[in-house]
Amino acid sequence: MNFPTALVEEAVTEIAKLPGIGKKSAMRLALHLLKADEAATVNLASALVNLRTKTRYCGQCGHISETETCNVCSNGRRERSVICVVEDSRDVLAIEETLQYQGLYHVLGGIISPMAGIGPEELNIEKLIERAGGEEVKEIILAISPTMEGDTTAFYLSKRLSGCGVKITNIARGIPVGGELEYADSVTLGRSIITRTIYQ
Amino acid sequence: MNFPTALVEEAVTEIAKLPGIGKKSAMRLALHLLKADEAATVNLASALVNLRTKTRYCGQCGHISETETCNVCSNGRRERSVICVVEDSRDVLAIEETLQYQGLYHVLGGIISPMAGIGPEELNIEKLIERAGGEEVKEIILAISPTMEGDTTAFYLSKRLSGCGVKITNIARGIPVGGELEYADSVTLGRSIITRTIYQ
Repeated sequence: MNFPTALVEEAVTEIAKLPGIGKKSAMRLALHLLKADEAATVNLASALVNLRTKTRYCGQCGHISETETCNVCSNGRRERSVICVVEDSRDVLAIEETLQYQGLYHVLGGIISPMAGIGPEELNIEKLIERAGGEEVKEIILAISPTMEGDTTAFYLSKRLSGCGVKITNIARGIPVGGELEYADSVTLGRSIITRTIYQ
Repeated sequence: MNFPTALVEEAVTEIAKLPGIGKKSAMRLALHLLKADEAATVNLASALVNLRTKTRYCGQCGHISETETCNVCSNGRRERSVICVVEDSRDVLAIEETLQYQGLYHVLGGIISPMAGIGPEELNIEKLIERAGGEEVKEIILAISPTMEGDTTAFYLSKRLSGCGVKITNIARGIPVGGELEYADSVTLGRSIITRTIYQ
Protein backbone atom coordinates (compact mmCIF):
# COMPACT_ATOMS: atom_id res chain seq x y z
CA MET A 1 0.00 0.00 0.00
CA ASN A 2 1.18 3.51 -0.90
CA PHE A 3 1.19 6.09 1.89
CA PRO A 4 1.32 9.82 1.19
CA THR A 5 3.30 10.55 4.37
CA ALA A 6 4.97 8.71 7.24
CA LEU A 7 2.38 10.04 9.71
CA VAL A 8 -0.44 8.57 7.64
CA GLU A 9 1.40 5.26 7.50
CA GLU A 10 1.88 5.26 11.27
CA ALA A 11 -1.76 6.08 11.96
CA VAL A 12 -3.04 3.51 9.46
CA THR A 13 -0.76 0.84 10.94
CA GLU A 14 -2.04 1.55 14.46
CA ILE A 15 -5.71 1.64 13.40
CA ALA A 16 -5.34 -1.58 11.40
CA LYS A 17 -4.22 -3.39 14.57
CA LEU A 18 -7.79 -3.15 15.84
CA PRO A 19 -9.84 -6.31 15.31
CA GLY A 20 -11.93 -6.36 12.14
CA ILE A 21 -10.28 -3.29 10.58
CA GLY A 22 -8.04 -3.86 7.57
CA LYS A 23 -5.58 -1.45 5.94
CA LYS A 24 -8.13 -0.08 3.48
CA SER A 25 -10.69 0.74 6.19
CA ALA A 26 -7.91 2.16 8.34
CA MET A 27 -6.91 4.49 5.52
CA ARG A 28 -10.54 5.56 5.11
CA LEU A 29 -10.76 6.34 8.84
CA ALA A 30 -7.44 8.24 8.81
CA LEU A 31 -8.56 10.39 5.88
CA HIS A 32 -11.89 10.98 7.60
CA LEU A 33 -10.10 12.30 10.70
CA LEU A 34 -7.95 14.56 8.52
CA LYS A 35 -11.07 16.08 7.00
CA ALA A 36 -12.95 16.45 10.29
CA ASP A 37 -12.35 19.03 13.03
CA GLU A 38 -9.14 18.67 14.99
CA ALA A 39 -11.26 18.45 18.17
CA ALA A 40 -12.83 15.20 16.94
CA THR A 41 -9.44 13.48 16.83
CA VAL A 42 -8.26 14.96 20.13
CA ASN A 43 -11.47 13.89 21.88
CA LEU A 44 -11.28 10.40 20.42
CA ALA A 45 -7.64 9.99 21.46
CA SER A 46 -8.19 11.22 25.00
CA ALA A 47 -11.32 9.10 25.45
CA LEU A 48 -9.32 6.01 24.44
CA VAL A 49 -6.43 6.80 26.76
CA ASN A 50 -8.78 7.64 29.64
CA LEU A 51 -10.68 4.43 29.08
CA ARG A 52 -7.54 2.33 29.05
CA THR A 53 -5.70 3.98 31.95
CA LYS A 54 -8.60 4.61 34.34
CA THR A 55 -10.64 1.44 33.91
CA ARG A 56 -10.14 -1.39 36.38
CA TYR A 57 -11.89 -4.66 37.01
CA CYS A 58 -14.32 -5.31 39.86
CA GLY A 59 -12.57 -7.11 42.71
CA GLN A 60 -15.69 -9.22 43.26
CA CYS A 61 -16.88 -10.31 39.83
CA GLY A 62 -14.26 -9.15 37.32
CA HIS A 63 -16.65 -6.89 35.41
CA ILE A 64 -15.40 -3.57 34.03
CA SER A 65 -15.48 -0.87 36.69
CA GLU A 66 -14.14 2.55 37.55
CA THR A 67 -14.13 1.74 41.26
CA GLU A 68 -13.02 -1.16 43.45
CA THR A 69 -16.49 -2.75 43.17
CA CYS A 70 -18.59 -2.56 40.00
CA ASN A 71 -22.05 -1.04 39.53
CA VAL A 72 -23.76 -4.40 39.76
CA CYS A 73 -21.94 -5.79 42.81
CA SER A 74 -22.36 -2.52 44.72
CA ASN A 75 -26.08 -2.27 43.89
CA GLY A 76 -27.99 -3.13 47.10
CA ARG A 77 -31.10 -4.11 45.16
CA ARG A 78 -29.49 -7.04 43.30
CA GLU A 79 -30.29 -10.56 44.44
CA ARG A 80 -27.16 -11.95 46.12
CA SER A 81 -28.13 -15.61 46.04
CA VAL A 82 -27.57 -16.08 42.29
CA ILE A 83 -24.35 -15.67 40.32
CA CYS A 84 -24.40 -15.74 36.54
CA VAL A 85 -21.05 -16.84 35.07
CA VAL A 86 -20.15 -15.31 31.69
CA GLU A 87 -17.17 -15.22 29.37
CA ASP A 88 -16.62 -11.45 29.25
CA SER A 89 -18.07 -8.05 30.11
CA ARG A 90 -19.94 -7.83 26.81
CA ASP A 91 -22.07 -10.76 27.93
CA VAL A 92 -22.94 -8.91 31.15
CA LEU A 93 -24.12 -5.96 29.06
CA ALA A 94 -26.15 -8.23 26.78
CA ILE A 95 -27.88 -9.90 29.74
CA GLU A 96 -28.49 -6.55 31.48
CA GLU A 97 -30.13 -5.34 28.27
CA THR A 98 -32.77 -8.10 28.58
CA LEU A 99 -33.95 -6.74 31.99
CA GLN A 100 -34.66 -10.37 32.94
CA TYR A 101 -31.94 -10.91 35.50
CA GLN A 102 -31.57 -9.43 38.97
CA GLY A 103 -28.68 -11.42 40.41
CA LEU A 104 -24.91 -10.93 40.40
CA TYR A 105 -22.35 -11.84 37.74
CA HIS A 106 -18.97 -13.45 37.52
CA VAL A 107 -16.80 -12.61 34.50
CA LEU A 108 -14.28 -15.31 33.56
CA GLY A 109 -12.29 -13.11 31.19
CA GLY A 110 -12.27 -15.79 28.48
CA ILE A 111 -12.96 -19.48 27.99
CA ILE A 112 -10.79 -22.54 28.12
CA SER A 113 -9.13 -22.84 24.73
CA PRO A 114 -6.14 -25.15 24.40
CA MET A 115 -5.63 -23.97 20.80
CA ALA A 116 -5.13 -20.39 22.02
CA GLY A 117 -3.11 -21.54 25.03
CA ILE A 118 -5.78 -20.53 27.53
CA GLY A 119 -6.16 -22.97 30.40
CA PRO A 120 -8.29 -22.71 33.57
CA GLU A 121 -5.47 -20.96 35.44
CA GLU A 122 -5.62 -18.01 32.98
CA LEU A 123 -9.25 -17.40 33.88
CA ASN A 124 -10.96 -15.78 36.86
CA ILE A 125 -12.03 -19.17 38.25
CA GLU A 126 -10.50 -19.41 41.75
CA LYS A 127 -12.42 -16.31 42.82
CA LEU A 128 -15.62 -17.92 41.54
CA ILE A 129 -15.03 -21.07 43.62
CA GLU A 130 -14.43 -18.83 46.63
CA ARG A 131 -17.62 -16.84 45.99
CA ALA A 132 -19.63 -20.03 45.41
CA GLY A 133 -18.60 -21.17 48.90
CA GLY A 134 -20.20 -18.04 50.44
CA GLU A 135 -23.25 -18.50 52.65
CA GLU A 136 -25.63 -16.34 50.59
CA VAL A 137 -25.06 -18.12 47.27
CA LYS A 138 -27.75 -20.65 46.30
CA GLU A 139 -27.42 -20.91 42.52
CA ILE A 140 -24.77 -20.53 39.85
CA ILE A 141 -26.00 -20.03 36.29
CA LEU A 142 -23.53 -20.99 33.57
CA ALA A 143 -24.28 -18.53 30.74
CA ILE A 144 -21.49 -19.55 28.40
CA SER A 145 -21.85 -19.78 24.62
CA PRO A 146 -22.71 -23.35 23.53
CA THR A 147 -19.62 -23.78 21.37
CA MET A 148 -17.15 -26.62 21.81
CA GLU A 149 -14.82 -24.47 23.91
CA GLY A 150 -17.72 -22.96 25.85
CA ASP A 151 -19.10 -26.41 26.64
CA THR A 152 -15.65 -27.54 27.80
CA THR A 153 -15.43 -24.55 30.12
CA ALA A 154 -18.93 -25.15 31.48
CA PHE A 155 -18.12 -28.82 32.09
CA TYR A 156 -14.91 -27.89 33.90
CA LEU A 157 -16.73 -25.33 36.05
CA SER A 158 -19.55 -27.74 36.90
CA LYS A 159 -16.94 -30.25 38.14
CA ARG A 160 -15.10 -27.64 40.18
CA LEU A 161 -18.32 -26.27 41.67
CA SER A 162 -19.92 -29.63 42.43
CA GLY A 163 -18.53 -29.69 45.97
CA CYS A 164 -19.86 -26.24 46.91
CA GLY A 165 -23.43 -27.37 47.56
CA VAL A 166 -25.00 -24.80 45.23
CA LYS A 167 -27.47 -25.46 42.43
CA ILE A 168 -25.73 -25.28 39.05
CA THR A 169 -27.90 -24.34 36.06
CA ASN A 170 -27.37 -23.71 32.38
CA ILE A 171 -29.11 -21.14 30.16
CA ALA A 172 -31.71 -22.79 27.91
CA ARG A 173 -30.65 -23.91 24.47
CA GLY A 174 -33.22 -24.17 21.75
CA ILE A 175 -34.72 -22.55 18.71
CA PRO A 176 -34.14 -18.76 18.83
CA VAL A 177 -37.31 -16.70 19.13
CA GLY A 178 -38.31 -15.79 15.57
CA GLY A 179 -36.22 -18.65 14.15
CA GLU A 180 -37.58 -21.15 11.67
CA LEU A 181 -37.61 -24.84 12.62
CA GLU A 182 -36.57 -26.06 9.20
CA TYR A 183 -33.38 -24.01 9.28
CA ALA A 184 -32.32 -25.03 12.78
CA ASP A 185 -29.42 -27.46 12.98
CA SER A 186 -30.42 -30.94 14.05
CA VAL A 187 -28.48 -30.92 17.34
CA THR A 188 -30.29 -27.76 18.49
CA LEU A 189 -33.64 -29.07 17.28
CA GLY A 190 -33.07 -32.45 18.94
CA ARG A 191 -32.15 -30.82 22.25
CA SER A 192 -35.11 -28.48 22.05
CA ILE A 193 -37.39 -31.51 21.95
CA ILE A 194 -35.65 -33.31 24.82
CA THR A 195 -35.67 -30.20 27.00
CA ARG A 196 -39.19 -29.10 26.05
CA THR A 197 -41.08 -26.98 28.57
CA ILE A 198 -44.74 -26.89 29.62
CA TYR A 199 -46.82 -24.70 27.29
CA GLN A 200 -47.97 -21.58 29.12
CA MET B 1 -27.35 0.52 25.14
CA ASN B 2 -26.09 -0.26 28.63
CA PHE B 3 -22.62 0.97 29.55
CA PRO B 4 -20.67 -0.48 32.49
CA THR B 5 -18.97 2.87 33.24
CA ALA B 6 -19.01 6.48 32.07
CA LEU B 7 -15.51 6.13 30.57
CA VAL B 8 -16.67 3.23 28.43
CA GLU B 9 -19.67 5.25 27.31
CA GLU B 10 -17.46 8.19 26.39
CA ALA B 11 -15.01 6.05 24.44
CA VAL B 12 -17.78 4.16 22.63
CA THR B 13 -19.51 7.43 21.72
CA GLU B 14 -16.30 8.85 20.26
CA ILE B 15 -15.42 5.67 18.36
CA ALA B 16 -18.96 5.41 16.96
CA LYS B 17 -18.59 8.87 15.39
CA LEU B 18 -16.18 7.33 12.87
CA PRO B 19 -17.77 6.48 9.53
CA GLY B 20 -18.98 2.89 9.18
CA ILE B 21 -18.62 2.04 12.88
CA GLY B 22 -21.81 1.55 14.89
CA LYS B 23 -22.25 1.40 18.67
CA LYS B 24 -21.88 -2.39 18.80
CA SER B 25 -18.60 -2.41 16.87
CA ALA B 26 -17.40 0.53 18.94
CA MET B 27 -18.08 -1.43 22.13
CA ARG B 28 -16.18 -4.40 20.71
CA LEU B 29 -13.20 -2.15 19.91
CA ALA B 30 -13.30 -0.49 23.35
CA LEU B 31 -13.31 -3.86 25.11
CA HIS B 32 -10.48 -5.04 22.85
CA LEU B 33 -8.37 -2.06 23.90
CA LEU B 34 -9.14 -2.77 27.56
CA LYS B 35 -7.84 -6.32 27.16
CA ALA B 36 -4.75 -5.37 25.16
CA ASP B 37 -1.56 -3.75 26.45
CA GLU B 38 -1.84 -0.17 27.61
CA ALA B 39 0.90 0.72 25.09
CA ALA B 40 -1.38 -0.27 22.20
CA THR B 41 -3.95 2.35 23.19
CA VAL B 42 -1.36 5.02 23.91
CA ASN B 43 0.36 4.44 20.55
CA LEU B 44 -2.94 4.50 18.69
CA ALA B 45 -4.02 7.73 20.38
CA SER B 46 -0.73 9.51 19.75
CA ALA B 47 -0.58 8.36 16.13
CA LEU B 48 -4.06 9.82 15.57
CA VAL B 49 -3.24 13.13 17.22
CA ASN B 50 0.10 13.37 15.37
CA LEU B 51 -1.62 12.62 12.10
CA ARG B 52 -4.27 15.26 12.63
CA THR B 53 -2.12 18.02 14.03
CA LYS B 54 0.99 17.62 11.85
CA THR B 55 -0.55 16.87 8.48
CA ARG B 56 -1.08 19.72 6.04
CA TYR B 57 -2.15 19.93 2.42
CA CYS B 58 0.20 20.55 -0.50
CA GLY B 59 0.10 24.21 -1.53
CA GLN B 60 0.27 23.17 -5.19
CA CYS B 61 -2.11 20.25 -5.62
CA GLY B 62 -3.99 19.86 -2.32
CA HIS B 63 -2.71 16.32 -1.67
CA ILE B 64 -1.89 15.25 1.90
CA SER B 65 1.60 16.30 2.88
CA GLU B 66 3.88 16.85 5.83
CA THR B 67 5.68 19.69 4.08
CA GLU B 68 4.67 22.78 2.07
CA THR B 69 4.86 20.78 -1.18
CA CYS B 70 3.85 17.11 -1.39
CA ASN B 71 5.96 14.11 -2.42
CA VAL B 72 4.55 14.09 -5.94
CA CYS B 73 4.82 17.81 -6.69
CA SER B 74 8.36 18.00 -5.32
CA ASN B 75 9.51 14.94 -7.28
CA GLY B 76 11.69 16.21 -10.14
CA ARG B 77 11.08 13.06 -12.19
CA ARG B 78 7.32 13.61 -12.60
CA GLU B 79 6.02 14.86 -15.93
CA ARG B 80 4.90 18.49 -15.40
CA SER B 81 2.79 18.79 -18.54
CA VAL B 82 -0.10 16.64 -17.33
CA ILE B 83 -2.36 17.22 -14.32
CA CYS B 84 -4.76 14.51 -13.18
CA VAL B 85 -7.78 15.96 -11.31
CA VAL B 86 -9.23 13.73 -8.57
CA GLU B 87 -11.84 14.00 -5.84
CA ASP B 88 -9.63 13.23 -2.85
CA SER B 89 -6.23 11.97 -1.69
CA ARG B 90 -7.42 8.37 -1.67
CA ASP B 91 -7.80 8.57 -5.45
CA VAL B 92 -4.19 9.77 -5.74
CA LEU B 93 -3.08 6.72 -3.78
CA ALA B 94 -5.21 4.41 -5.94
CA ILE B 95 -3.75 5.84 -9.17
CA GLU B 96 -0.18 5.75 -7.80
CA GLU B 97 -0.74 2.08 -6.99
CA THR B 98 -1.32 1.34 -10.70
CA LEU B 99 2.20 2.63 -11.60
CA GLN B 100 0.68 3.83 -14.91
CA TYR B 101 0.82 7.58 -14.35
CA GLN B 102 3.86 9.84 -14.18
CA GLY B 103 2.26 13.29 -14.17
CA LEU B 104 1.07 15.60 -11.41
CA TYR B 105 -2.24 15.63 -9.53
CA HIS B 106 -4.83 18.12 -8.39
CA VAL B 107 -7.02 17.16 -5.44
CA LEU B 108 -10.43 18.87 -5.40
CA GLY B 109 -11.25 17.88 -1.82
CA GLY B 110 -14.74 16.70 -2.78
CA ILE B 111 -17.22 16.90 -5.65
CA ILE B 112 -20.06 19.26 -6.40
CA SER B 113 -23.05 18.01 -4.44
CA PRO B 114 -26.01 20.36 -4.01
CA MET B 115 -27.69 17.82 -1.70
CA ALA B 116 -24.74 18.01 0.72
CA GLY B 117 -24.46 21.78 0.25
CA ILE B 118 -21.12 21.55 -1.57
CA GLY B 119 -20.79 24.00 -4.45
CA PRO B 120 -17.77 24.80 -6.66
CA GLU B 121 -16.59 27.48 -4.23
CA GLU B 122 -16.09 24.83 -1.49
CA LEU B 123 -13.65 22.93 -3.70
CA ASN B 124 -10.02 23.49 -4.65
CA ILE B 125 -10.96 24.72 -8.14
CA GLU B 126 -9.53 28.26 -8.46
CA LYS B 127 -6.03 26.93 -7.86
CA LEU B 128 -6.61 24.36 -10.65
CA ILE B 129 -7.62 27.10 -13.12
CA GLU B 130 -4.49 29.00 -12.13
CA ARG B 131 -2.29 25.92 -12.62
CA ALA B 132 -3.98 25.09 -15.93
CA GLY B 133 -2.96 28.56 -17.17
CA GLY B 134 0.72 27.77 -16.53
CA GLU B 135 3.04 27.44 -19.54
CA GLU B 136 4.15 23.87 -18.91
CA VAL B 137 0.67 22.36 -18.73
CA LYS B 138 -0.55 20.63 -21.88
CA GLU B 139 -3.23 18.23 -20.64
CA ILE B 140 -5.71 17.96 -17.80
CA ILE B 141 -7.11 14.49 -17.10
CA LEU B 142 -10.46 14.43 -15.31
CA ALA B 143 -10.30 11.27 -13.19
CA ILE B 144 -13.57 11.69 -11.32
CA SER B 145 -15.97 8.82 -10.50
CA PRO B 146 -18.66 8.48 -13.20
CA THR B 147 -21.57 9.09 -10.81
CA MET B 148 -24.18 11.78 -11.32
CA GLU B 149 -22.37 14.19 -9.01
CA GLY B 150 -18.97 13.27 -10.44
CA ASP B 151 -20.22 13.88 -13.98
CA THR B 152 -21.63 17.25 -12.91
CA THR B 153 -18.28 18.21 -11.43
CA ALA B 154 -16.41 17.06 -14.55
CA PHE B 155 -18.82 19.04 -16.77
CA TYR B 156 -18.35 22.16 -14.64
CA LEU B 157 -14.56 21.80 -14.73
CA SER B 158 -14.50 21.24 -18.50
CA LYS B 159 -16.44 24.50 -18.97
CA ARG B 160 -14.17 26.43 -16.62
CA LEU B 161 -11.02 25.00 -18.23
CA SER B 162 -12.14 25.42 -21.83
CA GLY B 163 -10.50 28.85 -22.11
CA CYS B 164 -7.08 27.70 -20.88
CA GLY B 165 -5.99 26.17 -24.16
CA VAL B 166 -5.11 22.80 -22.65
CA LYS B 167 -6.31 19.39 -23.80
CA ILE B 168 -8.99 18.07 -21.46
CA THR B 169 -9.37 14.29 -21.25
CA ASN B 170 -11.47 11.85 -19.28
CA ILE B 171 -10.45 8.44 -17.92
CA ALA B 172 -11.90 5.61 -20.03
CA ARG B 173 -15.24 4.14 -19.02
CA GLY B 174 -16.06 0.62 -20.02
CA ILE B 175 -16.28 -2.96 -18.91
CA PRO B 176 -13.93 -3.52 -15.95
CA VAL B 177 -11.09 -5.93 -16.65
CA GLY B 178 -12.30 -9.36 -15.55
CA GLY B 179 -15.94 -8.23 -15.74
CA GLU B 180 -18.61 -10.21 -17.58
CA LEU B 181 -20.44 -8.53 -20.47
CA GLU B 182 -23.83 -9.95 -19.56
CA TYR B 183 -23.73 -8.41 -16.09
CA ALA B 184 -22.62 -4.93 -17.22
CA ASP B 185 -25.32 -2.24 -17.10
CA SER B 186 -26.53 -1.17 -20.51
CA VAL B 187 -25.22 2.42 -20.28
CA THR B 188 -21.68 1.20 -19.61
CA LEU B 189 -21.95 -1.46 -22.30
CA GLY B 190 -23.38 1.02 -24.84
CA ARG B 191 -20.59 3.52 -24.14
CA SER B 192 -17.95 0.82 -24.36
CA ILE B 193 -19.08 0.12 -27.93
CA ILE B 194 -19.19 3.78 -28.93
CA THR B 195 -15.75 4.48 -27.45
CA ARG B 196 -14.18 1.22 -28.69
CA THR B 197 -10.43 1.20 -29.25
CA ILE B 198 -8.26 -0.44 -31.88
CA TYR B 199 -7.40 -4.02 -30.97
CA GLN B 200 -3.70 -4.35 -30.14
